Amino acid sequence: MCELLGMSANVPTDICFSFTGLMQRGGRTGPHKDGWGITFYEGKGCRTFRDPLPSYNSPIAKLVQDYPIKSCAVISHIRQANRGAVALENTHPFIRELWGRNWTFAHNGQLTGYHSLKSADFQPVGETDSEYAFCWIMGQLKQRYKRRPSNWQAVFKFIATCADQVAKKGSFNMILSDGDYVMAYCATNLYWLTRRAPFGKATLLDEDVEIDFQKETTPNDVVTLIATKPLTGNEQWQKIPTGEFALFHLGERVL
Amino acid sequence: MCELLGMSANVPTDICFSFTGLMQRGGRTGPHKDGWGITFYEGKGCRTFRDPLPSYNSPIAKLVQDYPIKSCAVISHIRQANRGAVALENTHPFIRELWGRNWTFAHNGQLTGYHSLKSADFQPVGETDSEYAFCWIMGQLKQRYKRRPSNWQAVFKFIATCADQVAKKGSFNMILSDGDYVMAYCATNLYWLTRRAPFGKATLLDEDVEIDFQKETTPNDVVTLIATKPLTGNEQWQKIPTGEFALFHLGERVL
Repeated sequence: MCELLGMSANVPTDICFSFTGLMQRGGRTGPHKDGWGITFYEGKGCRTFRDPLPSYNSPIAKLVQDYPIKSCAVISHIRQANRGAVALENTHPFIRELWGRNWTFAHNGQLTGYHSLKSADFQPVGETDSEYAFCWIMGQLKQRYKRRPSNWQAVFKFIATCADQVAKKGSFNMILSDGDYVMAYCATNLYWLTRRAPFGKATLLDEDVEIDFQKETTPNDVVTLIATKPLTGNEQWQKIPTGEFALFHLGERVL
Repeated sequence: MCELLGMSANVPTDICFSFTGLMQRGGRTGPHKDGWGITFYEGKGCRTFRDPLPSYNSPIAKLVQDYPIKSCAVISHIRQANRGAVALENTHPFIRELWGRNWTFAHNGQLTGYHSLKSADFQPVGETDSEYAFCWIMGQLKQRYKRRPSNWQAVFKFIATCADQVAKKGSFNMILSDGDYVMAYCATNLYWLTRRAPFGKATLLDEDVEIDFQKETTPNDVVTLIATKPLTGNEQWQKIPTGEFALFHLGERVL
Protein backbone atom coordinates (compact mmCIF):
# COMPACT_ATOMS: atom_id res chain seq x y z
CA MET A 1 0.00 0.00 0.00
CA CYS A 2 1.01 3.61 -0.27
CA GLU A 3 0.31 6.97 1.26
CA LEU A 4 -1.23 10.00 -0.35
CA LEU A 5 -0.93 13.70 0.38
CA GLY A 6 -2.78 16.54 -1.32
CA MET A 7 -3.15 20.26 -0.80
CA SER A 8 -5.52 22.95 -2.05
CA ALA A 9 -4.98 26.59 -1.06
CA ASN A 10 -6.24 30.06 -1.94
CA VAL A 11 -2.74 31.57 -1.94
CA PRO A 12 0.49 29.90 -3.06
CA THR A 13 1.53 27.95 0.02
CA ASP A 14 4.51 25.73 0.70
CA ILE A 15 3.86 22.17 1.81
CA CYS A 16 7.30 21.61 3.38
CA PHE A 17 5.87 20.94 6.87
CA SER A 18 3.44 18.22 5.78
CA PHE A 19 5.88 16.82 3.23
CA THR A 20 8.50 16.46 5.97
CA GLY A 21 6.05 14.29 7.92
CA LEU A 22 5.10 12.18 4.91
CA MET A 23 8.71 11.58 3.86
CA GLN A 24 9.51 9.96 7.20
CA ARG A 25 6.98 7.26 6.36
CA GLY A 26 9.00 6.51 3.24
CA GLY A 27 11.30 4.00 4.90
CA ARG A 28 11.73 5.37 8.43
CA THR A 29 8.47 5.59 10.42
CA GLY A 30 6.59 3.74 7.65
CA PRO A 31 7.31 0.95 5.14
CA HIS A 32 6.76 2.99 1.96
CA LYS A 33 10.30 2.68 0.65
CA ASP A 34 9.61 2.01 -3.05
CA GLY A 35 9.70 5.54 -4.35
CA TRP A 36 7.89 8.80 -3.95
CA GLY A 37 6.75 11.77 -6.00
CA ILE A 38 5.24 15.21 -5.68
CA THR A 39 3.59 17.53 -8.23
CA PHE A 40 3.35 21.26 -7.66
CA TYR A 41 1.08 23.38 -9.81
CA GLU A 42 2.28 26.92 -10.43
CA GLY A 43 -0.05 28.85 -12.70
CA LYS A 44 -1.02 26.56 -15.57
CA GLY A 45 2.27 24.74 -15.35
CA CYS A 46 3.31 22.02 -12.99
CA ARG A 47 6.49 20.28 -12.02
CA THR A 48 6.97 16.85 -10.60
CA PHE A 49 9.83 15.54 -8.50
CA ARG A 50 10.03 11.79 -8.47
CA ASP A 51 12.44 9.17 -7.22
CA PRO A 52 12.27 5.37 -7.09
CA LEU A 53 14.50 5.52 -3.98
CA PRO A 54 13.15 5.67 -0.41
CA SER A 55 12.08 9.20 0.41
CA TYR A 56 13.53 9.47 3.90
CA ASN A 57 17.09 9.60 2.55
CA SER A 58 16.52 10.87 -1.01
CA PRO A 59 18.58 13.95 -1.96
CA ILE A 60 15.70 15.08 -4.18
CA ALA A 61 13.22 14.79 -1.29
CA LYS A 62 15.67 16.81 0.81
CA LEU A 63 15.68 19.53 -1.85
CA VAL A 64 11.87 19.62 -1.88
CA GLN A 65 11.87 19.92 1.93
CA ASP A 66 14.49 22.67 1.98
CA TYR A 67 13.42 24.71 -1.07
CA PRO A 68 9.89 25.98 -0.45
CA ILE A 69 7.95 25.83 -3.71
CA LYS A 70 4.68 27.69 -3.24
CA SER A 71 1.60 26.28 -4.90
CA CYS A 72 -2.20 26.33 -4.75
CA ALA A 73 -2.50 22.65 -5.68
CA VAL A 74 -0.19 19.78 -4.76
CA ILE A 75 -0.35 16.00 -5.03
CA SER A 76 2.18 13.71 -3.40
CA HIS A 77 2.64 9.97 -2.95
CA ILE A 78 4.98 7.53 -1.27
CA ARG A 79 4.97 4.01 -2.59
CA GLN A 80 5.03 0.52 -1.19
CA ALA A 81 5.00 -1.52 -4.38
CA ASN A 82 2.41 -4.18 -5.02
CA ARG A 83 1.59 -4.07 -8.77
CA GLY A 84 4.61 -3.17 -10.93
CA ALA A 85 8.32 -3.20 -10.10
CA VAL A 86 10.19 -0.49 -8.22
CA ALA A 87 10.99 1.77 -11.17
CA LEU A 88 10.65 5.37 -12.22
CA GLU A 89 7.82 4.63 -14.66
CA ASN A 90 5.79 3.13 -11.80
CA THR A 91 6.29 6.10 -9.50
CA HIS A 92 3.29 8.37 -8.85
CA PRO A 93 1.97 11.00 -9.51
CA PHE A 94 1.07 10.18 -13.10
CA ILE A 95 0.38 13.02 -15.54
CA ARG A 96 -1.59 13.41 -18.75
CA GLU A 97 -2.65 16.47 -20.73
CA LEU A 98 -6.30 16.92 -21.63
CA TRP A 99 -7.92 20.14 -22.98
CA GLY A 100 -4.65 21.98 -22.50
CA ARG A 101 -4.54 21.18 -18.78
CA ASN A 102 -2.12 18.98 -16.89
CA TRP A 103 -4.02 16.29 -14.97
CA THR A 104 -2.18 14.52 -12.17
CA PHE A 105 -3.17 11.47 -10.23
CA ALA A 106 -1.95 9.35 -7.34
CA HIS A 107 -3.50 6.16 -5.98
CA ASN A 108 -3.42 4.16 -2.80
CA GLY A 109 -4.83 0.64 -2.83
CA GLN A 110 -4.74 -2.45 -4.99
CA LEU A 111 -6.85 -3.51 -7.97
CA THR A 112 -7.44 -6.86 -9.67
CA GLY A 113 -8.55 -7.37 -13.28
CA TYR A 114 -7.32 -3.89 -14.12
CA HIS A 115 -5.92 -4.86 -17.54
CA SER A 116 -9.50 -4.63 -18.84
CA LEU A 117 -9.36 -0.88 -18.11
CA LYS A 118 -8.37 0.14 -21.63
CA SER A 119 -8.38 3.50 -23.38
CA ALA A 120 -7.34 4.24 -26.95
CA ASP A 121 -6.38 7.81 -26.09
CA PHE A 122 -4.30 7.36 -22.97
CA GLN A 123 -1.97 4.41 -22.48
CA PRO A 124 0.06 3.45 -19.44
CA VAL A 125 3.84 3.75 -19.67
CA GLY A 126 4.49 1.54 -16.64
CA GLU A 127 2.81 -1.55 -15.20
CA THR A 128 0.91 -0.29 -12.18
CA ASP A 129 -2.81 -0.86 -11.63
CA SER A 130 -2.85 2.85 -10.69
CA GLU A 131 -1.71 4.14 -14.08
CA TYR A 132 -4.13 1.77 -15.85
CA ALA A 133 -6.98 3.21 -13.79
CA PHE A 134 -5.89 6.80 -14.39
CA CYS A 135 -5.58 6.31 -18.16
CA TRP A 136 -9.01 4.70 -18.25
CA ILE A 137 -10.58 7.58 -16.31
CA MET A 138 -8.92 10.12 -18.63
CA GLY A 139 -10.19 8.17 -21.63
CA GLN A 140 -13.74 8.14 -20.23
CA LEU A 141 -13.48 11.89 -19.68
CA LYS A 142 -12.34 12.55 -23.23
CA GLN A 143 -15.16 10.38 -24.62
CA ARG A 144 -17.79 12.01 -22.43
CA TYR A 145 -16.82 15.59 -23.32
CA LYS A 146 -15.91 16.00 -26.97
CA ARG A 147 -14.86 19.58 -26.29
CA ARG A 148 -13.36 21.35 -23.33
CA PRO A 149 -16.21 21.55 -20.79
CA SER A 150 -17.13 24.69 -18.83
CA ASN A 151 -18.97 23.20 -15.83
CA TRP A 152 -16.03 21.81 -13.89
CA GLN A 153 -17.99 20.58 -10.89
CA ALA A 154 -20.02 18.39 -13.27
CA VAL A 155 -16.74 17.07 -14.69
CA PHE A 156 -15.58 16.00 -11.24
CA LYS A 157 -18.94 14.41 -10.47
CA PHE A 158 -18.50 12.39 -13.66
CA ILE A 159 -14.97 11.43 -12.58
CA ALA A 160 -16.46 10.20 -9.29
CA THR A 161 -18.79 7.85 -11.20
CA CYS A 162 -15.73 6.52 -13.05
CA ALA A 163 -13.96 6.08 -9.72
CA ASP A 164 -16.98 4.11 -8.45
CA GLN A 165 -16.48 1.68 -11.33
CA VAL A 166 -12.73 1.34 -10.73
CA ALA A 167 -13.40 0.82 -7.01
CA LYS A 168 -15.32 -2.37 -7.87
CA LYS A 169 -11.98 -3.89 -8.86
CA GLY A 170 -10.40 -3.53 -5.43
CA SER A 171 -9.27 -0.75 -3.17
CA PHE A 172 -9.19 2.70 -4.74
CA ASN A 173 -8.22 5.77 -2.76
CA MET A 174 -7.08 8.52 -5.08
CA ILE A 175 -6.20 12.18 -5.33
CA LEU A 176 -6.60 13.84 -8.72
CA SER A 177 -6.10 17.43 -9.86
CA ASP A 178 -6.27 19.58 -12.97
CA GLY A 179 -4.38 22.35 -11.20
CA ASP A 180 -7.51 24.28 -10.23
CA TYR A 181 -9.43 21.62 -8.37
CA VAL A 182 -8.12 18.90 -6.07
CA MET A 183 -10.37 15.84 -5.75
CA ALA A 184 -10.12 13.07 -3.18
CA TYR A 185 -11.98 9.78 -3.63
CA CYS A 186 -12.00 7.44 -0.66
CA ALA A 187 -12.29 3.65 -0.60
CA THR A 188 -10.75 2.94 2.78
CA ASN A 189 -8.65 5.78 4.20
CA LEU A 190 -8.50 9.44 3.25
CA TYR A 191 -8.69 12.33 5.70
CA TRP A 192 -8.85 16.08 5.18
CA LEU A 193 -8.38 19.19 7.25
CA THR A 194 -8.88 22.89 6.47
CA ARG A 195 -6.68 25.42 8.20
CA ARG A 196 -7.88 29.02 8.38
CA ALA A 197 -7.72 31.98 10.81
CA PRO A 198 -7.32 31.94 13.74
CA PHE A 199 -4.29 29.75 13.03
CA GLY A 200 -2.70 27.72 15.79
CA LYS A 201 0.24 25.42 16.23
CA ALA A 202 0.55 21.91 14.86
CA THR A 203 2.85 19.04 15.72
CA LEU A 204 3.85 16.34 13.26
CA LEU A 205 3.16 12.77 14.29
CA ASP A 206 6.19 11.36 12.42
CA GLU A 207 8.92 13.82 13.25
CA ASP A 208 9.64 16.04 16.22
CA VAL A 209 8.67 19.24 14.43
CA GLU A 210 6.20 21.89 15.52
CA ILE A 211 4.98 24.76 13.40
CA ASP A 212 3.17 27.93 14.35
CA PHE A 213 0.96 28.67 11.36
CA GLN A 214 0.17 32.13 12.69
CA LYS A 215 3.74 33.13 11.86
CA GLU A 216 3.55 31.61 8.38
CA THR A 217 0.18 32.86 7.18
CA THR A 218 -2.04 35.88 6.63
CA PRO A 219 -5.57 36.05 8.10
CA ASN A 220 -7.19 35.34 4.72
CA ASP A 221 -5.28 32.14 3.96
CA VAL A 222 -7.33 28.97 3.55
CA VAL A 223 -5.37 25.75 3.17
CA THR A 224 -6.79 22.23 2.96
CA LEU A 225 -4.69 19.11 3.35
CA ILE A 226 -5.70 15.60 2.34
CA ALA A 227 -3.82 12.55 3.63
CA THR A 228 -4.11 8.78 3.96
CA LYS A 229 -3.58 9.13 7.70
CA PRO A 230 -3.62 12.34 9.77
CA LEU A 231 -0.19 13.97 9.76
CA THR A 232 -0.65 16.03 12.91
CA GLY A 233 -1.72 14.98 16.39
CA ASN A 234 -3.49 18.07 17.67
CA GLU A 235 -5.86 18.92 14.81
CA GLN A 236 -9.29 17.58 13.81
CA TRP A 237 -8.91 15.55 10.61
CA GLN A 238 -12.16 14.41 8.98
CA LYS A 239 -12.47 11.04 7.28
CA ILE A 240 -14.11 10.88 3.84
CA PRO A 241 -16.72 8.08 3.95
CA THR A 242 -16.12 4.97 1.83
CA GLY A 243 -17.26 5.41 -1.78
CA GLU A 244 -17.53 9.18 -1.44
CA PHE A 245 -15.43 12.04 -2.71
CA ALA A 246 -14.51 15.55 -1.69
CA LEU A 247 -13.70 18.35 -4.12
CA PHE A 248 -11.59 21.34 -3.14
CA HIS A 249 -11.02 24.63 -4.93
CA LEU A 250 -8.65 27.31 -3.63
CA GLY A 251 -8.64 25.68 -0.20
CA GLU A 252 -12.42 25.44 0.23
CA ARG A 253 -14.48 22.27 -0.03
CA VAL A 254 -16.95 22.87 -2.89
CA LEU A 255 -18.49 19.38 -3.19
CA MET B 1 16.60 32.39 -28.45
CA CYS B 2 17.48 29.39 -26.38
CA GLU B 3 20.04 26.64 -26.14
CA LEU B 4 19.53 22.93 -26.49
CA LEU B 5 21.43 19.96 -25.10
CA GLY B 6 20.77 16.30 -25.80
CA MET B 7 22.47 13.01 -25.03
CA SER B 8 22.21 9.46 -26.31
CA ALA B 9 24.33 6.70 -24.75
CA ASN B 10 24.65 2.93 -24.78
CA VAL B 11 25.10 2.71 -21.01
CA PRO B 12 23.45 4.90 -18.38
CA THR B 13 25.70 7.94 -18.28
CA ASP B 14 25.57 11.11 -16.23
CA ILE B 15 25.46 14.42 -18.05
CA CYS B 16 26.74 16.53 -15.12
CA PHE B 17 29.82 17.77 -17.01
CA SER B 18 27.94 19.06 -20.06
CA PHE B 19 25.04 20.29 -17.96
CA THR B 20 27.48 22.33 -15.85
CA GLY B 21 28.63 24.08 -19.02
CA LEU B 22 25.12 24.73 -20.30
CA MET B 23 23.89 26.09 -16.97
CA GLN B 24 26.49 28.86 -17.04
CA ARG B 25 24.86 30.18 -20.19
CA GLY B 26 21.63 30.54 -18.21
CA GLY B 27 22.35 34.05 -17.00
CA ARG B 28 26.12 34.08 -16.48
CA THR B 29 28.13 33.41 -19.68
CA GLY B 30 24.94 33.59 -21.78
CA PRO B 31 21.65 35.53 -21.74
CA HIS B 32 19.30 32.53 -21.33
CA LYS B 33 17.91 33.54 -17.96
CA ASP B 34 14.22 32.75 -18.47
CA GLY B 35 14.14 29.23 -17.16
CA TRP B 36 15.62 25.84 -17.89
CA GLY B 37 14.67 22.20 -17.84
CA ILE B 38 16.10 18.72 -18.23
CA THR B 39 14.48 15.34 -18.82
CA PHE B 40 16.25 12.10 -17.94
CA TYR B 41 14.93 8.80 -19.21
CA GLU B 42 15.47 5.84 -16.91
CA GLY B 43 13.98 2.63 -18.29
CA LYS B 44 10.54 3.47 -19.66
CA GLY B 45 10.11 6.24 -17.13
CA CYS B 46 11.45 9.74 -17.23
CA ARG B 47 11.77 12.64 -14.89
CA THR B 48 11.98 16.30 -15.62
CA PHE B 49 13.49 19.05 -13.53
CA ARG B 50 12.31 22.48 -14.51
CA ASP B 51 12.58 26.00 -13.17
CA PRO B 52 11.47 29.37 -14.53
CA LEU B 53 14.41 30.94 -12.66
CA PRO B 54 17.86 31.49 -14.22
CA SER B 55 19.81 28.24 -14.20
CA TYR B 56 23.16 29.56 -13.07
CA ASN B 57 21.87 30.19 -9.54
CA SER B 58 18.94 27.75 -9.35
CA PRO B 59 19.02 25.37 -6.37
CA ILE B 60 17.33 22.74 -8.52
CA ALA B 61 20.00 23.09 -11.24
CA LYS B 62 22.59 22.75 -8.48
CA LEU B 63 20.98 19.49 -7.37
CA VAL B 64 21.03 18.16 -10.94
CA GLN B 65 24.73 19.06 -11.22
CA ASP B 66 25.63 17.48 -7.88
CA TYR B 67 23.44 14.38 -7.96
CA PRO B 68 24.49 12.29 -10.96
CA ILE B 69 21.39 10.76 -12.54
CA LYS B 70 22.49 8.19 -15.09
CA SER B 71 20.50 7.91 -18.27
CA CYS B 72 20.73 6.67 -21.87
CA ALA B 73 18.64 9.57 -23.22
CA VAL B 74 18.55 13.17 -22.00
CA ILE B 75 17.05 16.40 -23.32
CA SER B 76 17.82 19.79 -21.79
CA HIS B 77 17.02 23.41 -22.59
CA ILE B 78 17.77 26.88 -21.30
CA ARG B 79 15.39 29.60 -22.27
CA GLN B 80 15.56 33.17 -23.44
CA ALA B 81 11.88 33.99 -23.79
CA ASN B 82 10.43 35.31 -27.03
CA ARG B 83 6.94 33.78 -27.42
CA GLY B 84 5.15 33.27 -24.08
CA ALA B 85 5.87 34.77 -20.66
CA VAL B 86 8.51 33.55 -18.23
CA ALA B 87 6.43 30.88 -16.48
CA LEU B 88 6.64 27.22 -15.58
CA GLU B 89 4.12 26.19 -18.26
CA ASN B 90 6.37 27.77 -20.92
CA THR B 91 9.50 26.00 -19.72
CA HIS B 92 10.92 23.20 -21.91
CA PRO B 93 11.15 20.22 -22.27
CA PHE B 94 7.50 19.53 -23.05
CA ILE B 95 6.14 16.02 -22.58
CA ARG B 96 3.26 14.03 -24.01
CA GLU B 97 2.41 10.34 -23.86
CA LEU B 98 1.74 8.45 -27.10
CA TRP B 99 1.55 4.64 -27.51
CA GLY B 100 2.56 4.21 -23.87
CA ARG B 101 5.81 6.12 -24.37
CA ASN B 102 6.85 9.46 -22.95
CA TRP B 103 7.80 11.84 -25.77
CA THR B 104 9.84 14.89 -24.85
CA PHE B 105 10.70 17.90 -26.91
CA ALA B 106 12.72 21.10 -26.70
CA HIS B 107 12.99 23.86 -29.30
CA ASN B 108 15.34 26.68 -30.15
CA GLY B 109 14.16 29.36 -32.56
CA GLN B 110 11.11 31.45 -33.23
CA LEU B 111 7.99 30.77 -35.30
CA THR B 112 5.31 33.03 -36.74
CA GLY B 113 1.73 32.01 -37.60
CA TYR B 114 2.07 29.01 -35.27
CA HIS B 115 -1.50 29.27 -33.93
CA SER B 116 -2.60 27.51 -37.11
CA LEU B 117 -0.69 24.43 -35.90
CA LYS B 118 -3.70 22.74 -34.31
CA SER B 119 -4.25 19.20 -33.10
CA ALA B 120 -7.41 17.76 -31.55
CA ASP B 121 -5.44 15.17 -29.60
CA PHE B 122 -2.66 17.22 -28.07
CA GLN B 123 -3.19 20.77 -26.85
CA PRO B 124 -0.66 23.24 -25.50
CA VAL B 125 -0.84 24.11 -21.81
CA GLY B 126 1.28 27.26 -22.17
CA GLU B 127 1.65 29.91 -24.86
CA THR B 128 4.96 29.13 -26.56
CA ASP B 129 5.34 28.59 -30.30
CA SER B 130 7.43 25.57 -29.28
CA GLU B 131 4.64 23.72 -27.47
CA TYR B 132 2.24 24.48 -30.33
CA ALA B 133 4.69 22.92 -32.78
CA PHE B 134 5.28 19.89 -30.55
CA CYS B 135 1.55 19.24 -30.06
CA TRP B 136 0.98 19.52 -33.80
CA ILE B 137 3.79 17.05 -34.57
CA MET B 138 2.41 14.60 -31.98
CA GLY B 139 -1.06 14.99 -33.50
CA GLN B 140 0.32 14.31 -37.00
CA LEU B 141 2.05 11.22 -35.64
CA LYS B 142 -1.10 9.88 -34.01
CA GLN B 143 -3.07 10.46 -37.23
CA ARG B 144 -0.45 8.84 -39.43
CA TYR B 145 -0.13 5.68 -37.29
CA LYS B 146 -3.47 4.47 -35.98
CA ARG B 147 -1.66 1.84 -33.94
CA ARG B 148 1.71 1.67 -32.24
CA PRO B 149 4.20 1.36 -35.10
CA SER B 150 7.08 -1.12 -35.17
CA ASN B 151 9.46 0.53 -37.65
CA TRP B 152 10.79 3.35 -35.48
CA GLN B 153 13.26 4.73 -38.01
CA ALA B 154 10.32 5.28 -40.38
CA VAL B 155 8.50 7.09 -37.56
CA PHE B 156 11.40 9.51 -37.12
CA LYS B 157 11.66 10.06 -40.88
CA PHE B 158 7.97 11.00 -40.79
CA ILE B 159 8.65 13.36 -37.86
CA ALA B 160 11.36 15.00 -39.96
CA THR B 161 8.82 15.73 -42.72
CA CYS B 162 6.59 17.34 -40.07
CA ALA B 163 9.58 19.36 -38.84
CA ASP B 164 10.17 20.52 -42.43
CA GLN B 165 6.66 21.94 -42.45
CA VAL B 166 7.06 23.66 -39.08
CA ALA B 167 10.40 25.08 -40.22
CA LYS B 168 8.58 27.02 -42.94
CA LYS B 169 7.10 29.15 -40.16
CA GLY B 170 10.43 30.42 -38.88
CA SER B 171 13.47 29.02 -37.16
CA PHE B 172 13.11 25.49 -35.87
CA ASN B 173 15.97 23.67 -34.18
CA MET B 174 14.66 20.87 -32.02
CA ILE B 175 15.61 17.82 -30.02
CA LEU B 176 12.96 15.14 -29.56
CA SER B 177 13.04 11.76 -27.85
CA ASP B 178 10.81 8.81 -27.06
CA GLY B 179 13.34 7.50 -24.56
CA ASP B 180 14.93 5.06 -27.00
CA TYR B 181 15.85 7.40 -29.83
CA VAL B 182 17.13 10.97 -29.66
CA MET B 183 16.45 13.06 -32.77
CA ALA B 184 17.98 16.41 -33.64
CA TYR B 185 16.52 18.60 -36.38
CA CYS B 186 18.56 21.61 -37.43
CA ALA B 187 17.39 24.92 -38.90
CA THR B 188 20.32 27.11 -37.98
CA ASN B 189 22.56 25.70 -35.25
CA LEU B 190 22.86 22.20 -33.88
CA TYR B 191 26.12 20.32 -33.35
CA TRP B 192 26.86 16.77 -32.29
CA LEU B 193 29.82 14.79 -31.07
CA THR B 194 30.29 11.09 -30.32
CA ARG B 195 32.73 10.09 -27.62
CA ARG B 196 34.11 6.53 -27.64
CA ALA B 197 37.36 4.74 -26.78
CA PRO B 198 40.11 5.83 -26.68
CA PHE B 199 38.68 8.53 -24.43
CA GLY B 200 40.59 11.73 -23.83
CA LYS B 201 40.21 14.86 -21.80
CA ALA B 202 37.77 17.67 -22.49
CA THR B 203 37.60 21.25 -21.29
CA LEU B 204 34.38 23.22 -20.96
CA LEU B 205 34.21 26.50 -22.84
CA ASP B 206 31.94 28.15 -20.24
CA GLU B 207 33.49 27.10 -16.96
CA ASP B 208 36.99 26.31 -15.89
CA VAL B 209 36.37 22.58 -15.63
CA GLU B 210 38.29 19.76 -17.24
CA ILE B 211 37.26 16.13 -17.28
CA ASP B 212 39.22 13.02 -18.08
CA PHE B 213 36.66 10.70 -19.65
CA GLN B 214 39.05 7.77 -19.45
CA LYS B 215 38.55 7.77 -15.68
CA GLU B 216 34.77 7.97 -15.99
CA THR B 217 34.08 5.40 -18.69
CA THR B 218 34.60 1.80 -19.76
CA PRO B 219 36.10 0.96 -23.19
CA ASN B 220 32.69 0.00 -24.63
CA ASP B 221 30.90 3.24 -23.78
CA VAL B 222 29.49 5.26 -26.67
CA VAL B 223 28.06 8.65 -25.79
CA THR B 224 26.73 11.26 -28.20
CA LEU B 225 26.05 14.84 -27.24
CA ILE B 226 23.97 17.34 -29.20
CA ALA B 227 24.16 21.07 -28.50
CA THR B 228 23.26 24.44 -30.00
CA LYS B 229 26.90 25.47 -29.73
CA PRO B 230 29.90 23.25 -28.97
CA LEU B 231 30.35 22.90 -25.21
CA THR B 232 34.02 21.92 -25.29
CA GLY B 233 36.96 23.59 -26.96
CA ASN B 234 39.22 20.67 -27.77
CA GLU B 235 36.83 18.23 -29.47
CA GLN B 236 35.50 17.99 -33.04
CA TRP B 237 31.81 18.93 -33.02
CA GLN B 238 29.93 18.36 -36.30
CA LYS B 239 27.24 20.72 -37.50
CA ILE B 240 23.97 19.27 -38.77
CA PRO B 241 23.18 20.94 -42.12
CA THR B 242 20.16 23.25 -42.33
CA GLY B 243 16.91 21.35 -42.91
CA GLU B 244 18.46 18.00 -42.04
CA PHE B 245 18.17 15.75 -39.04
CA ALA B 246 20.27 13.23 -37.16
CA LEU B 247 18.87 10.23 -35.29
CA PHE B 248 20.75 8.56 -32.45
CA HIS B 249 20.13 5.27 -30.71
CA LEU B 250 22.19 4.07 -27.76
CA GLY B 251 24.88 6.59 -28.57
CA GLU B 252 25.28 5.70 -32.27
CA ARG B 253 24.01 7.74 -35.18
CA VAL B 254 21.56 5.53 -37.06
CA LEU B 255 20.15 8.05 -39.58
